[in-house]
Amino acid sequence: VQRHPVIALLTDFGEDDFFVASLKGVIVSINPEARVIDITHRIPSYEISVGSFILRAVYKYFPEKTIFLVIVDPGVGSSRRILLMKSKKHYFIAPDNGVLSGVLVQEQDVAIREITNTKYFLSDTSRTFEGRDKMAPAASWLSLDIPIEEFGPKTIQVKRAVEYETEFDGNEISGRILYEDKFGNLITNLSGDIVEEFLSKSKDNRFIIRAGNTEVLSFLSSYSDVEKGNFLCLIGSLGLLEIAVREGSAAKKLKMKTGDKIIIRRKV
Amino acid sequence: VQRHPVIALLTDFGEDDFFVASLKGVIVSINPEARVIDITHRIPSYEISVGSFILRAVYKYFPEKTIFLVIVDPGVGSSRRILLMKSKKHYFIAPDNGVLSGVLVQEQDVAIREITNTKYFLSDTSRTFEGRDKMAPAASWLSLDIPIEEFGPKTIQVKRAVEYETEFDGNEISGRILYEDKFGNLITNLSGDIVEEFLSKSKDNRFIIRAGNTEVLSFLSSYSDVEKGNFLCLIGSLGLLEIAVREGSAAKKLKMKTGDKIIIRRKV
Amino acid sequence: VQRHPVIALLTDFGEDDFFVASLKGVIVSINPEARVIDITHRIPSYEISVGSFILRAVYKYFPEKTIFLVIVDPGVGSSRRILLMKSKKHYFIAPDNGVLSGVLVQEQDVAIREITNTKYFLSDTSRTFEGRDKMAPAASWLSLDIPIEEFGPKTIQVKRAVEYETEFDGNEISGRILYEDKFGNLITNLSGDIVEEFLSKSKDNRFIIRAGNTEVLSFLSSYSDVEKGNFLCLIGSLGLLEIAVREGSAAKKLKMKTGDKIIIRRKV
Repeated sequence: VQRHPVIALLTDFGEDDFFVASLKGVIVSINPEARVIDITHRIPSYEISVGSFILRAVYKYFPEKTIFLVIVDPGVGSSRRILLMKSKKHYFIAPDNGVLSGVLVQEQDVAIREITNTKYFLSDTSRTFEGRDKMAPAASWLSLDIPIEEFGPKTIQVKRAVEYETEFDGNEISGRILYEDKFGNLITNLSGDIVEEFLSKSKDNRFIIRAGNTEVLSFLSSYSDVEKGNFLCLIGSLGLLEIAVREGSAAKKLKMKTGDKIIIRRKV
Repeated sequence: VQRHPVIALLTDFGEDDFFVASLKGVIVSINPEARVIDITHRIPSYEISVGSFILRAVYKYFPEKTIFLVIVDPGVGSSRRILLMKSKKHYFIAPDNGVLSGVLVQEQDVAIREITNTKYFLSDTSRTFEGRDKMAPAASWLSLDIPIEEFGPKTIQVKRAVEYETEFDGNEISGRILYEDKFGNLITNLSGDIVEEFLSKSKDNRFIIRAGNTEVLSFLSSYSDVEKGNFLCLIGSLGLLEIAVREGSAAKKLKMKTGDKIIIRRKV
Repeated sequence: VQRHPVIALLTDFGEDDFFVASLKGVIVSINPEARVIDITHRIPSYEISVGSFILRAVYKYFPEKTIFLVIVDPGVGSSRRILLMKSKKHYFIAPDNGVLSGVLVQEQDVAIREITNTKYFLSDTSRTFEGRDKMAPAASWLSLDIPIEEFGPKTIQVKRAVEYETEFDGNEISGRILYEDKFGNLITNLSGDIVEEFLSKSKDNRFIIRAGNTEVLSFLSSYSDVEKGNFLCLIGSLGLLEIAVREGSAAKKLKMKTGDKIIIRRKV
């Protein structure tokens, strides 16, 4: 049995209510050694794609064998399944609604079970709070080294969200804004590798990045490379193209939001 | 001495300030083994009844011997007492202002002490932050298995909040909204047992639930049993009647709030 | 090696994003025994002085050897240094931007290192999230009892914020509002000792405290000493003069904010 198994929580439950504390109580009742870490509980209600993005952004930084309990679950109580996914290094428990898509893009080699074994549920299960009654207890039992085969049958087909793709059009590539962070930085789906490869073929490294009606001219590597209040683009800490304003909000200044288009045109 | 004694915090301190961290620092200074779990710190300032509701909603899910430190304390620094209550499975430390009412409704067999022994306080105690200076240290000492008799004299009379009662009127019962959760679900004081017993005597299981000016027609068991945006009633995860809108806010749609009346009329 | 080394986090990262969870994942990956405690992540973006105030308010309540990881870092990615400071009882890791000023006012005997040894960083370091890539791993290695000399060269000169000073003018002293807490209490920079010494020389203990255009007449020791809704002054839990309204917001009622002036005039 592990000494300090980590169970990391990612939900849309907010922090005002009894939801998150119920999960934690259930977890430490089953395994007092479990170490519960909050990722965030502030996923906007029912926003599966935001949950998927945040999970993808953090999971690699967690120790081997960490169990991620991911509850963004608009279909609670319906026939949607509850999944237990094992990747090379981690475990994930989540409803089958696409919230694991961000991880599935990164992890090829996964084993997936549908959690059906009522032995690992609370004895009374509600149909409105399966996080507390089914998913949290399953996560805690899993942290006690119960083999994944015990939780239910193997499954292969799972729901995946439609992900934005990078579009290539001659000397232009375009992507979308995936996420606006707390500082107003706009994180796109354009990976640093693709952007750098694309720009390496521009003439004298000249290019234009168009975000809404604004041309963001400087492509730099740190916020502090421009003056306060100025725009810049950079490959951010997630390896993705970000549009930022030093000590300001690019989201507010550009009036842009998730899903909006970003275009890079190279000069040749 | 317990290996991982759980101290669960429930306060109206918010998360911006130095309050909560001070509690945690004090607790782990006295007992480095203590495991601090946040229930919530977002009880609206001074709202004893909300604190009582949340505590009641979660405490049963915590392990035996959990110590609940409940600080919603508009009378801080006054002569209001600080209580240590032992129920069959748990401990509670709180001001004597009714915040333990929700637990007292559920737990008949309790022993209560007034915490007065300065040995278990910080050496300097302020009159404005007794949570840090008296309650947190007492909780942490208690987690080191100090017997409750040590903390101060026995007491019997404690303050209880006035609770809403279910009203019966022939073929009508009525209750009140106790709580609006993050998703806009309206949780009432009507227990599932009472509602089901009452409805079992209706003709052909026909009835009307009136919330404000709206008749909520469907009585179901899961949000997913109706289409997105539709109303439903159900017995929720706390065993209480809830009014909900699938993937929407019943509170907003009905313009109802805590204390408002809900009426169920059965057809006979 | 310590059994439960405490690493306390204080940042302006908010709770919505992937930032804080990344820090925690990195920390427990390096030292599974580390106990991570959140102070707050709700320092307003880039507000070094607020971070400094909160740190000063809480650090003394934490156990010996606690490592404070303080990330309010508008200069991330620039040449600003990352500091490791050892005081008599605690450790602090923070950017060199003045955020440790509040501690430095209290702690004379400190040893400071600049963290430069890449051995204690993640192998890939971004220039936009040095909290995750440099500071969090350094904190976690430090919790494994790596000597501070290992992290980088000794340094003496560090940035300090300009602190407000108490102004003396005959029978008047004045100070400034440092902080507005969640309850609307206005915490000033006037220390209890100075105020009490000053007032001890007034005639019959008569004086006026002027906050904006309002005279706050009562100087008491607990919120509960006045009726609900009334003003009072007191020496609060941080040993500083506070202006409060019982169960109300002094900040709102006085329309005052951080930096505004408070004057005490004694009658002689």
